[in-house]
Amino acid sequence: MMNQNQIRELNEAIDAVRGRRIENVYCVACGGSKAIFDPIQYIFDRETTIPSFVYTANEFVHRCPKGLGKNSLVISCSHSGNTPETVRATALAGEKGALTISFAFKTESPLWEATQHGVSYEWGPETDAGNHNNGMLFRVAFGVLNALQPCEKYERAVKACDALDETFRVNKEKFASRADAFGSKYKRAPLIYTMSSGPCYGVAYSFAICLLQEMQWIHSAAIHSGEYFHGPFEVTDYDVPFLLLKNVGPTRPLDDRAEAFASKYSRELNVIDCAEFDMHLIDEDLHEYFAVLVLGAVIRTYADALADHRGHPLSVRRYMWRMQY
Amino acid sequence: MMNQNQIRELNEAIDAVRGRRIENVYCVACGGSKAIFDPIQYIFDRETTIPSFVYTANEFVHRCPKGLGKNSLVISCSHSGNTPETVRATALAGEKGALTISFAFKTESPLWEATQHGVSYEWGPETDAGNHNNGMLFRVAFGVLNALQPCEKYERAVKACDALDETFRVNKEKFASRADAFGSKYKRAPLIYTMSSGPCYGVAYSFAICLLQEMQWIHSAAIHSGEYFHGPFEVTDYDVPFLLLKNVGPTRPLDDRAEAFASKYSRELNVIDCAEFDMHLIDEDLHEYFAVLVLGAVIRTYADALADHRGHPLSVRRYMWRMQY
Repeated sequence: MMNQNQIRELNEAIDAVRGRRIENVYCVACGGSKAIFDPIQYIFDRETTIPSFVYTANEFVHRCPKGLGKNSLVISCSHSGNTPETVRATALAGEKGALTISFAFKTESPLWEATQHGVSYEWGPETDAGNHNNGMLFRVAFGVLNALQPCEKYERAVKACDALDETFRVNKEKFASRADAFGSKYKRAPLIYTMSSGPCYGVAYSFAICLLQEMQWIHSAAIHSGEYFHGPFEVTDYDVPFLLLKNVGPTRPLDDRAEAFASKYSRELNVIDCAEFDMHLIDEDLHEYFAVLVLGAVIRTYADALADHRGHPLSVRRYMWRMQY
Repeated sequence: MMNQNQIRELNEAIDAVRGRRIENVYCVACGGSKAIFDPIQYIFDRETTIPSFVYTANEFVHRCPKGLGKNSLVISCSHSGNTPETVRATALAGEKGALTISFAFKTESPLWEATQHGVSYEWGPETDAGNHNNGMLFRVAFGVLNALQPCEKYERAVKACDALDETFRVNKEKFASRADAFGSKYKRAPLIYTMSSGPCYGVAYSFAICLLQEMQWIHSAAIHSGEYFHGPFEVTDYDVPFLLLKNVGPTRPLDDRAEAFASKYSRELNVIDCAEFDMHLIDEDLHEYFAVLVLGAVIRTYADALADHRGHPLSVRRYMWRMQY
């Protein structure tokens, strides 16, 4: 259950959208918070003709797209509410007349000052995962879609958000032994590629840049399954590790094709297939959208296992939190 | 000078745009051909409120954005005119009522059949670089901008395209010894990261996936300079090679910041700075847009040098051209 603040914040944000003419949607954040917007653009592409974009915050600030203006909706996110680039991007959007909605775990923060509509999310193992960053973002995304024009999926999507906590639990358990095997197998790997497409590409990206590069100091790159055959596949070799994330939407054939190839030429292809998830609490036509959130929860256990086998906690940094940059 | 076919094709394509209401622009291709669209989206972001997108072709086909329709302009590119995903994407766009313009070196090709307006480009050392893929694409891009609403930069941009061949020549010469030193220094490197932002991110991407991964079988990833500080920078170490491409547009501070950090914590930071290019044949306010093309020409000589020192020609493949996939 959302807390009273969340319910109020969510309603106020959606009401604000209802009162506006929205011609484009910019999703703006950095790193892991940026990656969670990738499925949002995917959902908007599939559900509405309104154009949506994802920018890393500092690119957005300096590029300053000409389309940004009073008919824009800018959605931003920063866990600490303190990421300077995201705060600046949100303030810039406001100055340009855009409607701003921002997500943060920590509320009394610069992002809260800079935005028009803050939506807080919960965090940590004792809280309902449906009210964490992804869940709250999906609630807002479907709320926005429904505000722009009645969206038949809206109420069922809200129910799906409410079912995330239990769905995460079941599937993390289901994949626990595979996660551990992955951690053991790759504890000495200097490089692991990730790969996906469609709604799940963002998870491949965040696993590469946040979990592997940032938190494990393991080299990585997120490869789009569709791009794989137009360059990257030439690095495939029997000893090059790949982690392929197969989505359950219409772009699944791209992941299938990458799997068929990589399984032939690498002995180190690892697959997490969203089709294997237990999603029975969520309506079937929404699996395309919600599987990515379950994937995010499951893949985190792969990172936990890797960290454990390597004796390198996910919380260790050599630069972040230790110096100015 | 463009040949007569090119002049006719270009004019017909732009005339077609003039006769249409265009509400969004989709740029669709694969790999290296996709990467050359990245600066186009940048230019559109800076010059017009019309939303533009870049998709890898198979993602576009299967995702099939709801915004694709009769008020869309879809621009596609395939060197051979034969890339199945790009041909399908172009055909799909036509079926949805969109206006299609396609670029290819080889004209009597499936892409030529699938598109409404083909624009051919030249290729090879004996031809004018201003009429190669990038030059022709820039001619169309500024032509489209000018057709949508009079663009003061249009005629000067055409002149800049005409000056590309000479500008490429001068700058390749200027960077020749640095390219050779790079090739020698990294001939045994198993991994080289690339990094950039704004108009030049696409070049970082294509150098990573086409030149390094595909043509040299060297591990790589393109890191956005703005994202660097939100994950990837934790892999920075004294012995991790980076190739940073500094742009001369408003996002240059992002590249500056990445340089300041990486130069402190890596002994292997290499920089190609667009500010060093001799661009005197091109109007100064256009450098932001055209430097990326010069960069593309210069960085190719870095790949040539690497291939030479490694005895691994850029033309070698282990999968492409050798099997079905």
